[in-house]
Amino acid sequence: MSSLDQITQALAALSIKPTSTVSHAATNSPASWKDALSAETSSPKSFELIKTIVYKPKTAKNATPVPVVVIAREETETASGALGKKLNLKELRLASEDLLSEFFTLDKSSLSPIALNSTTFPKVTVVLDSSIEVSETAFAIHAGSSSDTVFVSGKDLVSYLRSLETADAKVQEIDFVALKAEAVAPAPAAPKSKDSGDKALSKSENPIQIAIAAKKDEDFSTWYTDVLIKADMLDYYNVSGCYILKPWSYSIWEAIQRWFDDKIKALGVQNAYFPMFVSKKVLEREKDHIEGFSPEVAWVTRAGRSELEEHIAIRPTSETAMYPYYSKWIKSHRDLPLKLNQWNSVVRWEFKSPQPFLRTREFLWQEGHTAHLTREEADKEVLEILDLYRRVYEELLAVPVIPGVKSEKEKFAGGLYTTTVEGFIPTSGRGIQGGTSHCLGTNFSNPDMFDIFVEDPNDPVGKGKIYVWQNSWGLSTRAIGVMVMVHGDDQGLVLPPRVASVQVVVVPCGITAKTTDEERKRINDKCEELAQSLRAADIRAKADLRDGYTPGWKFNDWEQKGVPLRLEIGPQDIAKNQTLTVRRDTGKKDPVPLEGLPQIVSALLDDIQNGLFTRAKATYQERLKAITKWEDLVPALDNKNVVVIPWCEREQCEDDIKERSARAAEPTDERAPSAGAKSLCIPFDQSKWDAIEPGKTKCVGCGHDAKRWTMFGRSY
Amino acid sequence: MSSLDQITQALAALSIKPTSTVSHAATNSPASWKDALSAETSSPKSFELIKTIVYKPKTAKNATPVPVVVIAREETETASGALGKKLNLKELRLASEDLLSEFFTLDKSSLSPIALNSTTFPKVTVVLDSSIEVSETAFAIHAGSSSDTVFVSGKDLVSYLRSLETADAKVQEIDFVALKAEAVAPAPAAPKSKDSGDKALSKSENPIQIAIAAKKDEDFSTWYTDVLIKADMLDYYNVSGCYILKPWSYSIWEAIQRWFDDKIKALGVQNAYFPMFVSKKVLEREKDHIEGFSPEVAWVTRAGRSELEEHIAIRPTSETAMYPYYSKWIKSHRDLPLKLNQWNSVVRWEFKSPQPFLRTREFLWQEGHTAHLTREEADKEVLEILDLYRRVYEELLAVPVIPGVKSEKEKFAGGLYTTTVEGFIPTSGRGIQGGTSHCLGTNFSNPDMFDIFVEDPNDPVGKGKIYVWQNSWGLSTRAIGVMVMVHGDDQGLVLPPRVASVQVVVVPCGITAKTTDEERKRINDKCEELAQSLRAADIRAKADLRDGYTPGWKFNDWEQKGVPLRLEIGPQDIAKNQTLTVRRDTGKKDPVPLEGLPQIVSALLDDIQNGLFTRAKATYQERLKAITKWEDLVPALDNKNVVVIPWCEREQCEDDIKERSARAAEPTDERAPSAGAKSLCIPFDQSKWDAIEPGKTKCVGCGHDAKRWTMFGRSY
Repeated sequence: MSSLDQITQALAALSIKPTSTVSHAATNSPASWKDALSAETSSPKSFELIKTIVYKPKTAKNATPVPVVVIAREETETASGALGKKLNLKELRLASEDLLSEFFTLDKSSLSPIALNSTTFPKVTVVLDSSIEVSETAFAIHAGSSSDTVFVSGKDLVSYLRSLETADAKVQEIDFVALKAEAVAPAPAAPKSKDSGDKALSKSENPIQIAIAAKKDEDFSTWYTDVLIKADMLDYYNVSGCYILKPWSYSIWEAIQRWFDDKIKALGVQNAYFPMFVSKKVLEREKDHIEGFSPEVAWVTRAGRSELEEHIAIRPTSETAMYPYYSKWIKSHRDLPLKLNQWNSVVRWEFKSPQPFLRTREFLWQEGHTAHLTREEADKEVLEILDLYRRVYEELLAVPVIPGVKSEKEKFAGGLYTTTVEGFIPTSGRGIQGGTSHCLGTNFSNPDMFDIFVEDPNDPVGKGKIYVWQNSWGLSTRAIGVMVMVHGDDQGLVLPPRVASVQVVVVPCGITAKTTDEERKRINDKCEELAQSLRAADIRAKADLRDGYTPGWKFNDWEQKGVPLRLEIGPQDIAKNQTLTVRRDTGKKDPVPLEGLPQIVSALLDDIQNGLFTRAKATYQERLKAITKWEDLVPALDNKNVVVIPWCEREQCEDDIKERSARAAEPTDERAPSAGAKSLCIPFDQSKWDAIEPGKTKCVGCGHDAKRWTMFGRSY
Repeated sequence: MSSLDQITQALAALSIKPTSTVSHAATNSPASWKDALSAETSSPKSFELIKTIVYKPKTAKNATPVPVVVIAREETETASGALGKKLNLKELRLASEDLLSEFFTLDKSSLSPIALNSTTFPKVTVVLDSSIEVSETAFAIHAGSSSDTVFVSGKDLVSYLRSLETADAKVQEIDFVALKAEAVAPAPAAPKSKDSGDKALSKSENPIQIAIAAKKDEDFSTWYTDVLIKADMLDYYNVSGCYILKPWSYSIWEAIQRWFDDKIKALGVQNAYFPMFVSKKVLEREKDHIEGFSPEVAWVTRAGRSELEEHIAIRPTSETAMYPYYSKWIKSHRDLPLKLNQWNSVVRWEFKSPQPFLRTREFLWQEGHTAHLTREEADKEVLEILDLYRRVYEELLAVPVIPGVKSEKEKFAGGLYTTTVEGFIPTSGRGIQGGTSHCLGTNFSNPDMFDIFVEDPNDPVGKGKIYVWQNSWGLSTRAIGVMVMVHGDDQGLVLPPRVASVQVVVVPCGITAKTTDEERKRINDKCEELAQSLRAADIRAKADLRDGYTPGWKFNDWEQKGVPLRLEIGPQDIAKNQTLTVRRDTGKKDPVPLEGLPQIVSALLDDIQNGLFTRAKATYQERLKAITKWEDLVPALDNKNVVVIPWCEREQCEDDIKERSARAAEPTDERAPSAGAKSLCIPFDQSKWDAIEPGKTKCVGCGHDAKRWTMFGRSY
């Protein structure tokens, strides 16, 4: 049986029927091959050649090389430099004829995807041009010799390669066009892929991609969602606007929870749980308040087969659900302050396009609801909580924020005043609200509303009623999204050490096919030993001892996931009693001694944490422009800045600024809804800018007398 | 102006118009008073006398006594012994004429509720017969002298007394009929009450009562809900079947969470969050499974003003919501095991009458969902988790449970087998399911369902598919309800130290009106010092330094709330460098030296924890009857036992047992739905009972061959 027959038979076993098979003159170049095929009448009218290129990566002297077999369309550029970076392999060189014979018992001209079989496939790294599978063209491949060709569809070619996959060896698909674009800043290599097994989800919900699909500066929203998926933080869910928080992101929320929960408990706050349901009557009690939420309320109208008599809302926030009980529970000034907090989820059925973490129909948050005897106490707590929010952002997430008070227009519906910490996303030049601490005044406690009062303890005879002063305050998982947007880069996520569930990953290096089991164990044990010594010093360290992945694959995997620090350990490192540290934030590599490693790592992690914050803070400061003339405002916004202006604090002026800045703006990005600038906050710290002179300093918006410097910006 | 006129005027100021006022012959006994009134034509046709009795409690020598003024219907029995216990006051004695003159400048016969005014009211404890307010009768009260009487309605009388209340001094209403019934086992005294301020809730949802309303053994379901309310664990909510978890109960859930979360993380489980919504299509994928839940699913059909195109369920559990993603995420055996857990709430819209913690429409729980390569791994984990559930009950909540496997009929819908820890409520004689750990087998992973598979890592060539083995396991806030039912007593809640947010309360004693500020500070400081020394030893201690409450009031308050240990500190204790310890579980009082107090307290808390468990375990063992003849089964159940019988394990027999035991049972209590006995579990430990002899030992239900000893019982 000829090799052509053998191959045809092998294909047939996979139900792959070549479009045609052609025997022709021997060929030794793409041009001569194409000519030979075009000469044959049994060739398809139009077709493309498949090239099969074998590279050899630089390998330790005694190690068996793992060749890289690239299967691509003839016209595709497969630059070995970019490819090497992508695969994290050093110095890819075209394989020698010796190597080809050794592996495939074939010469270069006869090489073809079909030369891969169940014996050779596991010994090489197979890289597939991702444009092949989706092409309608017939592809020509050599069949065992340079004088035999079969024509197959792209789909069948991929099927054949997939049929060779084992649990340990997978085809890596690469988009070479994207790769070329990324050549300057390399993107990490492919995670393992499998096309089957996801019948339960529609294709569009199950993107299998191999690197961050877009550059942060070029297509920010694609970059953002792709980083979240690739870093394994999140997955799409089959109810629109809802997302799955996977452990990699949920653990960040847990870190925030633990820190914040301890702090508020120290302030005397207790946790409680109120039902997620709110009756229509109760929800609609406060008019201004409900106006802010009613367009987004989800309603339960049916249970089992029964229609409910009264429709029941899922809480969009819990003020009106909780305060009837505050009225019941608060009987005397001794019951004050009442400070309750809930860790729960709320539902706001937004119809704008959703964005993970930033705008989702269900989101996790905490909502604190407190009642106080005096305004002074309430005011004090508002700021104490706001400062905790600032610290969550600045100290945990390394994200700088500016604390201030919201304008009347932007304050919480139904409240007295709202304080906020305002963040900034440099890539989009937009402001983003980080967390809000509201003083509700007596707006909810008054007798027409929830009637929450105590007798005046300083007037026991007259028994004057005191309506309690209330606050509410909330911080949501949005914070995680802000962190991703601020710190992430073209390689993926960058995690601040304080919230990283894995702060340090230890990767064994220099293990090859020739490494003895004993040596492999020695290296792996050393990694585990280092990780343990770090864990003993309360550093969240993990040794990545997974079999079957190259160090390069692991480097990329953890870089994509944003692990702050990598330690590499190979035989030579062990010999020198050292390890190579690689920082995720700067890419800086430094060998350090194993002696005193926990102290060194701890200091490095602090430096990374501080470095992330310092850089982000410098950017925010630089991009917050003090503007005193209207004509400078829109250009500043268009240059991706937010601004601070002397402002009159009139709502009409705010509306006007929004309208005028929107007209001037670039076309609105669908996912960044506010094209006009709105007020972000009136910063508490006004000292950074020239003092406002009453009656002299004029509002940039309208020319009336200015009151305070106020931040305006496009925003999320 | 006569004293009668003065009083009439005082009443008029409160818009209280006496039915009539009568001057008559001086009287010195109820009989002579009644005679005198009956003789007067201006008296109402029918009326009742009000008696006003003043007691003096035993007080420290130099302390000013706080008299107890009891205002009751003449016919009401106001036994001073029971009342003293209720108020936690020692040795109530009828007050001397001297004391009456001192306080009221009145003799005994002239005493009346109206003798209380804004001067005297704050100096005494006023106890009101709760039957007065609701009575339609006219009540006779002396008006300043024994020869003047006004007739007022019960409502007006109460209004008058309420008008005298201050923030610190409240009328205590007592149901003397209930008090008499409780005389054997004293119930705690009244919390402060206020009738206003709860407009936001309907009356029926806002019961203001002063002691546990029922005895545990007499009216268990009333006792249960009342303990929850009085211990401040829970409040009713205005959506039926939903309850508010207040900090006192939520903190127990937090203690369970912390413990269990640490344990499962050590097993490699990670936390995640899936949306609360499940699309109809996904929810209904597994037929057996959805049949178990669909009658109880709550549906969101509307958002804002829009009807949703597809109705969306709120998760009743998350198997079908999560597993499409397991199919997507699990690509290789290296992705196994996948172990995720969620702390969330689920909704099951039950139409049976709800019961706090045990059957609520929304409840908090954790749900673990894991996938494994082999059955062995899955089996092993099922039992590891079940043992953690056992430990939550036994080690944290001091509630004994019996681990075992569910019958086919009682297993989780759609799963392979279900393991369970089964608890027992002695008061009702019913079993209660404590937590379940299910092996789902490959029922959800199979290709017709969610198609979750990997290639067989031990067969890289053949590439056999392995459908993953799945488990799911859940523990809910129901555990808190079980704990309350098992340990609570007629005085209220009894908390096991390990889950008590306050383990020790330190109460200052011996402070009276005559105590100098300096001395008061010295005692309070000592209490705070002790509490701090305990907290330094990781004991959750609190000094109750609240002003304006008597020690007795505080004792009751903390007893009702179940705090495991009370320390009393008075001047004499300080002098002797000791404190009095009072155990909540046994009532045992012991003076202990302050030297080494943290060690002593720590040992006491351990002893309380162990004692609660040991007692509950002994009861469970005693009330689990091994039965071998059918005719003994129903009588055993009727005597509030559960039983264990040799059983054939046939579903038909189980149905039959349920029906036959229901027919024989007492009338069904509406809140305890299962009158027939169902199988609770097949205990893992069969060694306690005579070995089943295959072919010889017969099933108690049907006479077929028995397989294993199986627990049956009425249940929740």
